[in-house]
Amino acid sequence: MSLPVAITQGDPAGIGPEIIAKAFRDQPELLRGCFVAGDVATLRRAAAIVQGDSQASLPVAELAQASDALDVPPRCVPVLQVATPADALVPFGQVSAAAGRAAGDCVFWAARAALRAELAAIVTAPLHKEALAAAGAPYARYPGHTELLQAEAAAYLGRPIEQLPVRMMLANDELRTVLVSIHLSLRAAIEQVTERNILQTLRITHQSVGAALHRSPRIAVAGLNPHAGEGGLFGREELDIIGPAIAQARAEGIDAHGPFAPDTVFMRARSTPERAGEFDVVVAMYHDQGLIPVKYLGVEQGVNVTLGLPFVRTSPDHGTAFDIAGSGRADAASLLAAVRMARELAP
Amino acid sequence: MSLPVAITQGDPAGIGPEIIAKAFRDQPELLRGCFVAGDVATLRRAAAIVQGDSQASLPVAELAQASDALDVPPRCVPVLQVATPADALVPFGQVSAAAGRAAGDCVFWAARAALRAELAAIVTAPLHKEALAAAGAPYARYPGHTELLQAEAAAYLGRPIEQLPVRMMLANDELRTVLVSIHLSLRAAIEQVTERNILQTLRITHQSVGAALHRSPRIAVAGLNPHAGEGGLFGREELDIIGPAIAQARAEGIDAHGPFAPDTVFMRARSTPERAGEFDVVVAMYHDQGLIPVKYLGVEQGVNVTLGLPFVRTSPDHGTAFDIAGSGRADAASLLAAVRMARELAP
Repeated sequence: MSLPVAITQGDPAGIGPEIIAKAFRDQPELLRGCFVAGDVATLRRAAAIVQGDSQASLPVAELAQASDALDVPPRCVPVLQVATPADALVPFGQVSAAAGRAAGDCVFWAARAALRAELAAIVTAPLHKEALAAAGAPYARYPGHTELLQAEAAAYLGRPIEQLPVRMMLANDELRTVLVSIHLSLRAAIEQVTERNILQTLRITHQSVGAALHRSPRIAVAGLNPHAGEGGLFGREELDIIGPAIAQARAEGIDAHGPFAPDTVFMRARSTPERAGEFDVVVAMYHDQGLIPVKYLGVEQGVNVTLGLPFVRTSPDHGTAFDIAGSGRADAASLLAAVRMARELAP
Repeated sequence: MSLPVAITQGDPAGIGPEIIAKAFRDQPELLRGCFVAGDVATLRRAAAIVQGDSQASLPVAELAQASDALDVPPRCVPVLQVATPADALVPFGQVSAAAGRAAGDCVFWAARAALRAELAAIVTAPLHKEALAAAGAPYARYPGHTELLQAEAAAYLGRPIEQLPVRMMLANDELRTVLVSIHLSLRAAIEQVTERNILQTLRITHQSVGAALHRSPRIAVAGLNPHAGEGGLFGREELDIIGPAIAQARAEGIDAHGPFAPDTVFMRARSTPERAGEFDVVVAMYHDQGLIPVKYLGVEQGVNVTLGLPFVRTSPDHGTAFDIAGSGRADAASLLAAVRMARELAP
């Protein structure tokens, strides 16, 4: 391992800092070579919460530069101060411009460092959308991490955003799904079911999942309509749009199959210790089609991956959990899974 | 138990007859008081397939009338000849008008017997939609069981079909979901998300699930859009339609909650031996929203229930499986679950 992995701290009023501290405490081997892109005082508070009454100390080490993360001894929390230092710690569980700005600073810094090829991957702890909006320019214009990272990457590469299409992948131990669209009304999402968008999704999926598996992934494509349209009886998108996109992808050497009935394709792709799934990944036509099955068994192990960026970015599949932030009760499992996935995907 | 349960044989070219024979063979206690509304020759063939080389015989007993089912000894297959007797058995795995007509005859007979209050419930084995269409009048006009049963019930009650709204419930050991609409394109399904349709769904769900649980069911209502619209950002149906329908239902004493984010509401409602779900049933806004989670863990145990009819009707949650029909390999688990559910719901 020659490059470190940056974990952005997320909104300091949320559970991000404390699940990061837990991760370094509980899985020191997995976290070797990782560091926090954040605020030292925020991480000191988190480490104190997580350490609690235990005798084992959890020191926070301030790094001079990212590459020093590779030499940090285990069971301490290495932090690079990339957030503008604040006068005071923000209170837990409250939306504030200061918290939004601190969270945004870290993601911006990490995106730029990754684009300069100084990082193996970015793992992002959750931010709060309202806090980001309250933070004003340049953060307020981004609904979330994905759009912010995409804009930074496009600017760095000197391309218009449209020429850097990205897709969200949600994955757990059983199932991977890549979404054609995400944060849109269902009506608007149907309008995004175009041959171009599906083909882009298939190309991105083929490339990114293939890089992780070191082989051509078997991709299942879900239909849009019940029973995948039942031959045109319940909608024609499968015949007119999805089918042709799959044919084009196959002509390009992509191992895409479908369109399949949405209500059974995820079950077919599901891998368990007893039974390997029929496919490596399912391309879903809209947000909930893909996320309902990934989340059904519980969100603890879900990982969110942004595919199509010129760097690897993963994140836990949960939010800031303001209701329990600061209590030390938050579960680090999804963050740990995100770190594991980042290592798998990193070049 | 004072009334028998009729199991319609389904399409004779499919797996219906053989899973019925398996059910009588394997679960004689559960099947006490059940009989097959079907064709004697078809069930004799199925019993012979299922019996295979085993020494234990599986006799088919032809009934003179439905009520005789209550006196049939266990481990035989009681059949009432309600299909028009055919000259020859249909071949397995092929769509035919003859098979569609035989399947339709049984469902029609069972619907009428149930409406005359001669049955405790109907359990329907799968029919093949194309065969039903090929059968001509009166069957060809119905896309499937549900529409056929609804039309028969409305005619019997002398009401227009619009005044007998029905809903599909899918249920397994972990989750129950009731669908606002079923076999429509996703675009058309969005148009069915109206206050009137949601309120009807909530009333039917409250009444039917309440009858089974002997208490007021806790009903979760899924949103239509990602994150249930995130306060109007990703669609307004939650604010303008779903929320008001829930408020009206609550004013009527229905214990309805939501609208909730679709990607986590099913996970929250899921009951396992370790953890009771937060809700007894989830109302889903469209077909795949509800069926993806119900089917995700495997379709073997799924049961389809038609709510809103003046009689109880359940069915296994799978099709005719023409590819394995006649081989004796089909699994009777879903049919057995459907019989169990019919008994639970029967008055």
